[in-house]
Amino acid sequence: MNHDERRTGVWLVGARGSVATTAISGALAISAGMVAPVGMVTESPEFAGTALPPLGSLVFGGHDITQTPLPKRAEQLAAAGVIPADLVTAVRHDLATIDSELRGGAKGDDRRCQAEASAALAADLTGFRERHRLARVVVVNVSSTEPPAVHRPEYDSLPELEHAMAREPGVLPPSSLYAHAAFQAGCPYVDFTPSTGARLPALAALARQKAVPFAGRDAKTGQTLVRAALAPMFTARALRVLSWSGTNLLGGGDGATLADPAAAESKSVSKQRGLTAMLGDDVAGATHIDYVPDLGEWKTAWDHVGFEGFLGTRMTMQVTWQGCDSTLAAPLVLDLARLTARAHEAGELGVQPALGFFFKDPLGAEEHRLAEQYTILCDWARRL
Amino acid sequence: MNHDERRTGVWLVGARGSVATTAISGALAISAGMVAPVGMVTESPEFAGTALPPLGSLVFGGHDITQTPLPKRAEQLAAAGVIPADLVTAVRHDLATIDSELRGGAKGDDRRCQAEASAALAADLTGFRERHRLARVVVVNVSSTEPPAVHRPEYDSLPELEHAMAREPGVLPPSSLYAHAAFQAGCPYVDFTPSTGARLPALAALARQKAVPFAGRDAKTGQTLVRAALAPMFTARALRVLSWSGTNLLGGGDGATLADPAAAESKSVSKQRGLTAMLGDDVAGATHIDYVPDLGEWKTAWDHVGFEGFLGTRMTMQVTWQGCDSTLAAPLVLDLARLTARAHEAGELGVQPALGFFFKDPLGAEEHRLAEQYTILCDWARRL
Amino acid sequence: MNHDERRTGVWLVGARGSVATTAISGALAISAGMVAPVGMVTESPEFAGTALPPLGSLVFGGHDITQTPLPKRAEQLAAAGVIPADLVTAVRHDLATIDSELRGGAKGDDRRCQAEASAALAADLTGFRERHRLARVVVVNVSSTEPPAVHRPEYDSLPELEHAMAREPGVLPPSSLYAHAAFQAGCPYVDFTPSTGARLPALAALARQKAVPFAGRDAKTGQTLVRAALAPMFTARALRVLSWSGTNLLGGGDGATLADPAAAESKSVSKQRGLTAMLGDDVAGATHIDYVPDLGEWKTAWDHVGFEGFLGTRMTMQVTWQGCDSTLAAPLVLDLARLTARAHEAGELGVQPALGFFFKDPLGAEEHRLAEQYTILCDWARRL
Amino acid sequence: MNHDERRTGVWLVGARGSVATTAISGALAISAGMVAPVGMVTESPEFAGTALPPLGSLVFGGHDITQTPLPKRAEQLAAAGVIPADLVTAVRHDLATIDSELRGGAKGDDRRCQAEASAALAADLTGFRERHRLARVVVVNVSSTEPPAVHRPEYDSLPELEHAMAREPGVLPPSSLYAHAAFQAGCPYVDFTPSTGARLPALAALARQKAVPFAGRDAKTGQTLVRAALAPMFTARALRVLSWSGTNLLGGGDGATLADPAAAESKSVSKQRGLTAMLGDDVAGATHIDYVPDLGEWKTAWDHVGFEGFLGTRMTMQVTWQGCDSTLAAPLVLDLARLTARAHEAGELGVQPALGFFFKDPLGAEEHRLAEQYTILCDWARRL
Ligand SMILES: NC(=O)c1ccc[n+]([C@@H]2O[C@H](COP(=O)([O-])OP(=O)(O)OC[C@H]3O[C@@H](n4cnc5c(N)ncnc54)[C@H](O)[C@@H]3O)[C@@H](O)[C@H]2O)c1
Ligand SMILES: NC(=O)c1ccc[n+]([C@@H]2O[C@H](COP(=O)([O-])OP(=O)(O)OC[C@H]3O[C@@H](n4cnc5c(N)ncnc54)[C@H](O)[C@@H]3O)[C@@H](O)[C@H]2O)c1
Ligand SMILES: NC(=O)c1ccc[n+]([C@@H]2O[C@H](COP(=O)([O-])OP(=O)(O)OC[C@H]3O[C@@H](n4cnc5c(N)ncnc54)[C@H](O)[C@@H]3O)[C@@H](O)[C@H]2O)c1
Ligand SMILES: NC(=O)c1ccc[n+]([C@@H]2O[C@H](COP(=O)([O-])OP(=O)(O)OC[C@H]3O[C@@H](n4cnc5c(N)ncnc54)[C@H](O)[C@@H]3O)[C@@H](O)[C@H]2O)c1
Ligand code: NA
Ligand code: NA
Repeated sequence: MNHDERRTGVWLVGARGSVATTAISGALAISAGMVAPVGMVTESPEFAGTALPPLGSLVFGGHDITQTPLPKRAEQLAAAGVIPADLVTAVRHDLATIDSELRGGAKGDDRRCQAEASAALAADLTGFRERHRLARVVVVNVSSTEPPAVHRPEYDSLPELEHAMAREPGVLPPSSLYAHAAFQAGCPYVDFTPSTGARLPALAALARQKAVPFAGRDAKTGQTLVRAALAPMFTARALRVLSWSGTNLLGGGDGATLADPAAAESKSVSKQRGLTAMLGDDVAGATHIDYVPDLGEWKTAWDHVGFEGFLGTRMTMQVTWQGCDSTLAAPLVLDLARLTARAHEAGELGVQPALGFFFKDPLGAEEHRLAEQYTILCDWARRL
Repeated sequence: MNHDERRTGVWLVGARGSVATTAISGALAISAGMVAPVGMVTESPEFAGTALPPLGSLVFGGHDITQTPLPKRAEQLAAAGVIPADLVTAVRHDLATIDSELRGGAKGDDRRCQAEASAALAADLTGFRERHRLARVVVVNVSSTEPPAVHRPEYDSLPELEHAMAREPGVLPPSSLYAHAAFQAGCPYVDFTPSTGARLPALAALARQKAVPFAGRDAKTGQTLVRAALAPMFTARALRVLSWSGTNLLGGGDGATLADPAAAESKSVSKQRGLTAMLGDDVAGATHIDYVPDLGEWKTAWDHVGFEGFLGTRMTMQVTWQGCDSTLAAPLVLDLARLTARAHEAGELGVQPALGFFFKDPLGAEEHRLAEQYTILCDWARRL
Repeated sequence: MNHDERRTGVWLVGARGSVATTAISGALAISAGMVAPVGMVTESPEFAGTALPPLGSLVFGGHDITQTPLPKRAEQLAAAGVIPADLVTAVRHDLATIDSELRGGAKGDDRRCQAEASAALAADLTGFRERHRLARVVVVNVSSTEPPAVHRPEYDSLPELEHAMAREPGVLPPSSLYAHAAFQAGCPYVDFTPSTGARLPALAALARQKAVPFAGRDAKTGQTLVRAALAPMFTARALRVLSWSGTNLLGGGDGATLADPAAAESKSVSKQRGLTAMLGDDVAGATHIDYVPDLGEWKTAWDHVGFEGFLGTRMTMQVTWQGCDSTLAAPLVLDLARLTARAHEAGELGVQPALGFFFKDPLGAEEHRLAEQYTILCDWARRL
Repeated sequence: MNHDERRTGVWLVGARGSVATTAISGALAISAGMVAPVGMVTESPEFAGTALPPLGSLVFGGHDITQTPLPKRAEQLAAAGVIPADLVTAVRHDLATIDSELRGGAKGDDRRCQAEASAALAADLTGFRERHRLARVVVVNVSSTEPPAVHRPEYDSLPELEHAMAREPGVLPPSSLYAHAAFQAGCPYVDFTPSTGARLPALAALARQKAVPFAGRDAKTGQTLVRAALAPMFTARALRVLSWSGTNLLGGGDGATLADPAAAESKSVSKQRGLTAMLGDDVAGATHIDYVPDLGEWKTAWDHVGFEGFLGTRMTMQVTWQGCDSTLAAPLVLDLARLTARAHEAGELGVQPALGFFFKDPLGAEEHRLAEQYTILCDWARRL
């Protein structure tokens, strides 16, 4: 329980994106007492007794492949109604300082072999850790969603993977390369996106070998969150769900990415998986993801549930969720960074199923019901 | 675990109503293997190991103040789409047999003193128990909702209450008179409605004295059920709910009763109480109950939730629930009868907070979160 | 205005389908005074002075490729809640009589040349007309939706089409073969479905040559109907619609057909066309059609409209429509039969744009705004 | 058609309110070419040929009883997301100039006799007209909604009214006093609110005597607008509406006013009146207005329509409207000012039923159907 005095690094892959910029701006504003920590799970009373690194002790850095400076991104988010304009003004100076800690990221067309590419990324992490004399650095991937990776045999064996990486570029997709670099540098890693990331047997082996924890994947912030709260209601009441249909209307950068049917498909599949886990596999219904530019940073999700009750009577429930994606996601980045840092400090290693509360596709866990996930999370955090 | 071989009586106050008729018809049809027990909590896998009285061992009787025979009521419910028509045909004979077990109920204008009135009701219960040689009889109040009772000092003391009842008519409202009679006859009692029922200190004392359990009140089957599943999601995610507004459109007999603003008001108040318990007391928003005859036996509830996330951003969620009230309520009547019978058999007495899962206004319990209530219920049922 | 004394034939292609069975059962029940003509446009006060054939003077026949007798289909629709059960009992005898007027329809695998196939269908029509000494026979296509036809050069020229039909099977899709047979037999034709039907230049030429009117296509009964009422509101108020997104959840036979992405796609495209006509072509948004079996004969459509008002402020409207498709479609079949019969009697020939009020994709008309279409329809009906 | 060269005055009662401030800021920004005139009916193509005063020729003044300067109110509206912040910056100087044209308004506790009070208000109007050498001044009441006025016999006779006003304070409610002053000063008057305003026989007589036009009342900008577009759809399709229920959630100043049940009641009644006019008087359903502070300047309206189709089948439609009230209302203030000014120029006098398109409770008109109102408006504007 005796918490390391040194500060904790949070290294964001995709550090200039909406989620990252909102998370960093918010951490600064909350630490400065400008605004209450609404939306941060780890600031709620249940976590009062846990030994998490204080919000004010977090130091930010990250990789990105674009150059737009953080203060500029924050202004764009203010114009879109995600961050209050006066708050951006107040943290602009700190954002500029953090901006100088950001480094160029891994690009798909990198011609070096991946052993070299990974080593360069790992060097960014160790440099950051040493420069700021940090207790540890947690890497959180909040970069753009990748298309699903085609499986390669090397993914199942660490020696074979490292053999291939020593000779070739392009063995791992970027999200997995970042995970490899993190583990090499002894850093915990969190998959905030649905990308492949650490979810390969070879990388899981590396995490254990380097004694670092990891968690993922794909933060649940809207429709899936609501489904995880509502589906267990039907089960507990023995009501038979016949169909669960959904449509997501997304604006923003993420919407544009998901306008690509391949990317959207992989997101839809992961959404339906949770329903199956909670309700069984004979639930009909498709889930659509549509790009609707005028929604800006907002997302609207409509769900229609058809269910059967006593003596076969059919009934329905509909839900419309209208949320701001970055607003919902950003505090969870901070929560995950703190919890994973504490897990590392406490000696946890490998996949962390207790963090399933945060994810659509919880690595290492079968539990999808929100209330149960929350109980597991709180117990785990208290025990650490 | 060694379950009493004799059968269990279920005595329904309001036995000719929609909920009661659906519950009885369904119990018959399910016991005969005609239809699966969808909607019955106690038939789901979690309750497999519990020693509840089998559904087929239940024997039905009840009080009502109308004369419409049960088979006729069942046909009306078939016409309204609540019970399949072929199922009514199949159970018509058994319904007619049960109809002969029904007795006239307590009327508001009864001129006898209430000691006498209660004794007559209790005699109906003991007669039923002896006639069928039942292990026990559980009384469930599913009669029309009463207006809130004006408090009288006698309600707080059993001797004073019995003193008044020995001399006057009209001391207790009918729902409480039924509870008094049930306890006098050594029968467990369940308040399925929002009426006063057993919720008076004097009656709680009587239940303990007679060593019978009781539970209540106001079964949650729609909007409040959904709220109990959803409100904890906001709390767990540290999202601040600013307003929770709702409108209920009700057809049917219950809708006509609640068209009376006084009755509706008491229902609205009990609905808002759960929200306050889960979300704190600074949540704005009114809940309306409107009578809309064309909805027939159906109910539509619309909820609008305004909430605040990270850095003050405002978001909304809306839910539309379209349910058939009697379909949702009837299986819970059977669940409560079985669970309360088992509690009685196991020697439980007084208020049963573990049954809060079923109620809008759970007697003896502070917990309103559905998942937690479900865990408590399952643990309790396994332990009994 | 002096109306032909003889009765009018209504020949339904797909006569054993849900829409046809509901239309026939309803016409019988309304004519017998059993039920009010709710849903029939031509029975509303605006049409009081028009010389339409009375509902009781309609005589039904039709083609289908299945054998299920009409009384049996009507019972199935009663079980599904589309037709009241007692009404089916009352008209069962008349349905059986009509069933004996039904004939086998055109099949895709017919090996005869299409001139011969068309002549056989036309003979069914003339036989029906003569057997019942009918003033005229209107053919309405309410059979299953076909996939879009691949264009052939013969479709643009009547002589070339007839040349090809004289030698080959499979030149025209079934819906167009029925139109050809109708025109050959001197019968007006209505395309109730989105299938190709009469919408080929060669067939339009044949209709003019045979002096018969025709109309189509794809009756609007749900989402498109609502859009035709709502889209003009935005235009009249100078509000700029940025996106109009929609999801249709369909049960029933039609849903199963549209589960085929190709068929659904053609329906979606025709839906978007109306929006473009009313709102211009820079409106974003996709429209999905999903098959959700538990909805049975019901359809749920959700629409989300994103729009911009004064000074760029973004606002939204959502609509959920829950309708019974056959209930909505059937009365329009009767309306169209009566109106087209009257048009024929009045000497109208070729495409009838004034009937656009009824259709998603109004042949011969550019107007998609519902109120304007209604004004056009009423004026035309009065003038005929 | 030869339009008066001089400029037109627009005098807003409630000039420092949300609607007025948005209207003035927008007029300035549009005239300056900063933003397109989205939401302004009179800037759409249908009005291209009409001789309305150009937007840039409008000169603003007004009465209010608060002192908050216009630039400050505009900033508040920018913070609430109603007006873009950069636009407020751009027009701040002009707003300050207009602010100097605002005058103190009529207060309820004025101890002068109302003849004197009216003369003082009229002097403000004539002073404004002369100071700016305006062709005419249109008065538009956009001040806070008053409670319904208790009828007095003097309201029915102009001589008796003027007799009473010559002796007493408090004869007319403020909205009617403003109308009286406007007519005395020869100014057209528009009732944008549900307050009594010009809708008294004595004032109508005065308007005719002074040869000025007037119009009202209660601009329709949300739920009633949607109802006026949708209700005729049911009528045209002969679908029988059984119930139309609604809930309005309002934030903002208007919401706080309507939290007073008396004020809300009068608004609800006027809403239901339109439905009755369009659908007949046996439509069930209540309409609620709730104050929900977290909605800020936004309003959410939910409508549930229960209707019957062919053969008695019941169906439903739901609509959720999420609009920014001032955004929707402000452009209509400009439209009404321009149209009423033109009517005055063209010699129209007394009530103007052709402006019913804009109002919930259209004075002098029975037509509530939006499309028909629009046709009437366009025809009238072209003819003027
Ligand atoms: N917002 C939510 O509710 C939510 C929920 C779950 C998951 N996510 C995921 O979070 C991620 C970020 O979302 P966002 O809205 O911030 O998106 P965004 O497009 O605003 O930001 C993504 C950032 O990643 C950067 N990037 C792209 N490729 C990179 C690479 N190879 N290396 C380093 N940086 C790279 C981009 O330049 C950009 O700055 C997405 O993958 C999204 O699916 C978001
Ligand atoms: N359906 C639900 O979802 C639900 C949920 C919670 C509570 N409830 C409550 O259940 C109760 C029954 O609902 P319902 O839909 O069956 O109503 P209902 O009107 O169909 O039936 C009520 C029955 O009670 C009888 N009754 C009235 N006063 C009586 C008396 N003094 N003694 C004996 N019988 C009497 C009536 O004659 C009638 O037969 C209502 O109080 C309702 O509020 C229902
Ligand atoms: N219900 C609506 O609201 C609505 C609206 C617009 C259009 N429609 C169209 O109306 C049509 C009928 O709908 P439905 O719900 O009655 O469908 P359905 O499947 O119940 O009936 C279609 C009938 O057509 C018959 N059929 C199929 N191929 C045929 C052929 N070649 N010749 C003769 N008969 C044939 C089938 O055997 C069946 O009996 C569909 O095309 C549908 O798209 C319906
Ligand atoms: N926004 C809409 O969609 C809409 C639609 C129809 C009608 N309205 C009506 O428009 C009116 C204005 O709405 P708002 O949102 O601008 O309200 P608001 O409260 O922002 O503004 C009202 C203004 O009127 C002033 N006022 C009050 N009493 C006055 C008096 N006696 N003399 C002069 N000024 C007085 C107030 O000081 C305030 O500045 C309301 O009556 C509202 O009901 C609005
Ligand atoms: Na919204
Ligand atoms: Na429904």
